[in-house]
Amino acid sequence: MAQKPSIPKGTRDFGQQEMAERNYIFDTIRSVFKTFGYTQIETPAMENLSTLLGKYGDEGDKLLFRILNSGDAFADADFSKPLASQVCEKGLRYDLTVPFARFVVQHQNDISFPFKRFQIQPVWRADRPQKGRYREFYQCDADVIGSKSQINELELVQIVDRVFGLLDVNVLIKINNRKVLTGFAEICGFPDKVVDITVAIDKLDKIGLDAVKEEMSQKGLTQQAIDVIDSILKLSGSTEQKIASMRTLMNGGSASGIVSETGLRGLDELEELFGFIAAAGVKHPVEIDLSLARGLNYYTGAIFEVKALDFEIGSICGGGRYDNLTGIFGLPDMSGVGISFGADRIYDVLKGLGKFPADLGCSANILFANMGTEEVAYLLPVVSALRSNGIAVELYPENTKLKKQFDYADRKNIPFLSINGGDEMGAGIIQIKNLATGDQQTFPKDDIEGIISFIS
Amino acid sequence: MAQKPSIPKGTRDFGQQEMAERNYIFDTIRSVFKTFGYTQIETPAMENLSTLLGKYGDEGDKLLFRILNSGDAFADADFSKPLASQVCEKGLRYDLTVPFARFVVQHQNDISFPFKRFQIQPVWRADRPQKGRYREFYQCDADVIGSKSQINELELVQIVDRVFGLLDVNVLIKINNRKVLTGFAEICGFPDKVVDITVAIDKLDKIGLDAVKEEMSQKGLTQQAIDVIDSILKLSGSTEQKIASMRTLMNGGSASGIVSETGLRGLDELEELFGFIAAAGVKHPVEIDLSLARGLNYYTGAIFEVKALDFEIGSICGGGRYDNLTGIFGLPDMSGVGISFGADRIYDVLKGLGKFPADLGCSANILFANMGTEEVAYLLPVVSALRSNGIAVELYPENTKLKKQFDYADRKNIPFLSINGGDEMGAGIIQIKNLATGDQQTFPKDDIEGIISFIS
Repeated sequence: MAQKPSIPKGTRDFGQQEMAERNYIFDTIRSVFKTFGYTQIETPAMENLSTLLGKYGDEGDKLLFRILNSGDAFADADFSKPLASQVCEKGLRYDLTVPFARFVVQHQNDISFPFKRFQIQPVWRADRPQKGRYREFYQCDADVIGSKSQINELELVQIVDRVFGLLDVNVLIKINNRKVLTGFAEICGFPDKVVDITVAIDKLDKIGLDAVKEEMSQKGLTQQAIDVIDSILKLSGSTEQKIASMRTLMNGGSASGIVSETGLRGLDELEELFGFIAAAGVKHPVEIDLSLARGLNYYTGAIFEVKALDFEIGSICGGGRYDNLTGIFGLPDMSGVGISFGADRIYDVLKGLGKFPADLGCSANILFANMGTEEVAYLLPVVSALRSNGIAVELYPENTKLKKQFDYADRKNIPFLSINGGDEMGAGIIQIKNLATGDQQTFPKDDIEGIISFIS
Repeated sequence: MAQKPSIPKGTRDFGQQEMAERNYIFDTIRSVFKTFGYTQIETPAMENLSTLLGKYGDEGDKLLFRILNSGDAFADADFSKPLASQVCEKGLRYDLTVPFARFVVQHQNDISFPFKRFQIQPVWRADRPQKGRYREFYQCDADVIGSKSQINELELVQIVDRVFGLLDVNVLIKINNRKVLTGFAEICGFPDKVVDITVAIDKLDKIGLDAVKEEMSQKGLTQQAIDVIDSILKLSGSTEQKIASMRTLMNGGSASGIVSETGLRGLDELEELFGFIAAAGVKHPVEIDLSLARGLNYYTGAIFEVKALDFEIGSICGGGRYDNLTGIFGLPDMSGVGISFGADRIYDVLKGLGKFPADLGCSANILFANMGTEEVAYLLPVVSALRSNGIAVELYPENTKLKKQFDYADRKNIPFLSINGGDEMGAGIIQIKNLATGDQQTFPKDDIEGIISFIS
């Protein structure tokens, strides 16, 4: 009868300590989103498959978790045809972006634009589970839709800056612009190869300059075109100098002599955004990274990526501007920009760098030992008063050996222990011991303020 | 190409205002759970079907959402046999209790018992959607497992008392004890009919005393047995008086003369719990309700239910003690007790009684109007300083007509508006207007404290 219990592969339980650490990340991000006027929404775990299918490419479609129709799903099925699409009408959300686009279109008449929303919910992907890749994981997104102003980009950079400042993680904020990438393709003379060039450039860090050039050659680019890209990838100097050099190239100064209006607009955007950033002032370094493309074809303007400086891991946050996210649901021309924090990777960074506050996951400030029914009755008003003041308090439920109660406090890292028997009851006092320092103090039973200042 | 977007029936989107109201409920409950030393866990949305099936009765099994296996789910299916069980190995969780039991057994070696956990996550049921019944809804549970002490019951009553105190909702906390119900069956002379009797008694409020008696007669109870139950249901007086009267009946003083040891133990438990409650002191009324059974057969001791006093709705919170929740997963003899807050009903109560704080769902304390790039650069340090102090601030991203920016503040109920042009820049000041009162004040640009005290 008894089953050996387990959970589906690629999914996780989060116990007390991990939950506290994860909530520390989510609470920090949430609090920063809020100070920037972003408000939270939630969408259902399951969406109609018609909403999800075709939005993530063929590979994404395969990774959707499909939900069997309720009732007798197979009653009217035609077994001579593929069954999955006949017996499943719903799927689990694959990301927060498509449900957000669906939400905006569905509720467009109730929304005040520009619409600044954040969303922190799990998503599900039927990926092959492996280290650091899960089938259920949280995404943590902020997007603003219905505004083309780069003040939005600035605020997302400020949000990143503030979040990692609060989390005490040194990061590098990298910025690129999709129009600049388009401009590269144009001044190479291969405007239709922007995707190939973007994908190749994206690999610069991983495979190196020579392999990128080789790949572009295989994609059919001429030597002249590769020379143009080579000159771009080798740009150096300050952000201002890079933008100035690129402006020369985009303005006909490259080997091809071609002028790219789109590229020039991208440079205007970069320049404006860096101007805003300079005016606002941020704590972390922000730089142009021309190799940054994030492989996502729907970005149309700014592209962001955040790297931890003191810990080896991939991108921990990223995003960008998209001009037509809601078009597929019938609402065209809504420009938006967003970022997504990678909670699992940020967790690994904080864990690796030892940046979680020490007292996270502690269930209570103080454990009151249980010495019997009368003693408990004596303690109850004190316990209630502390809790009403927001102090987390445990009263050991069983009247059992003190050793066992002490062990409980120890295993749970509860920092203060209070043991009160007949003597304390007679004197109307409460004894409290700091388990770390051994410091013991005595308080009149009704000196709640005194107790609070000792234990918190 | 454009699709008319919609979501699956029985599911909901939560926009800015509803989310803020729901979070107000969840945050209140969470903060109270924490002061009682309960710590949060989360379990995956999907569980193995072997974990879920058979735990909720045949009806429950039918209401499980099943997830199609990934890859080609039908490749090895035997089409001559029922398909659902062949092509689905996972299902969405139906409640938080069974996953909690699975969690406790799976992680028993890492858990310090007594284990006090809370969990706030959505669950999914393929119920027919109707008013107030959803296919996706949040449960909000606290349970302690591994302790038989009724101090745990007391603390759950205190949690209920504190939560509804903070939410400013008047409630009646009703308590019963499953052993007392068993005792009723025993002194009726029908110990095997405890389920029938319990179900019938549970209907007292709905169908009345006569119909309950009629139902018990149909279930095969003798007139003498029904007379015993009649005398129990008509018990009156204070809690102490009711317990004393029941003790007489259980002790051989009923029409049958039968003594119920189980019933007497149930009365001992009730007496102890009410003694604890009196010693601790609670704000809301607490009373014995012998008709309370909650239809759940796994309760073995205390049973709780909470009713809103000023709003007509079913139970808004309930729970009880169970002695063998984890047995089915191979860990016997773990007694536990828990409660579950019904978030959707509590939402309806607060909405109906107008108890949500007025400023919930407001995205920001203040909107800074956008008068152009120079003006924005002037404002950025002020905006950043306010945000660093935890104030929610919006800076209108577009340099557009003031009317439009004002409308934005108005529609979003942002209470303060700050419009600053060349004059203010020249004077180094910030103008702020309280949109509700019309009160306008001027601050030096760097008087962040003054601004904060005006707008918060």
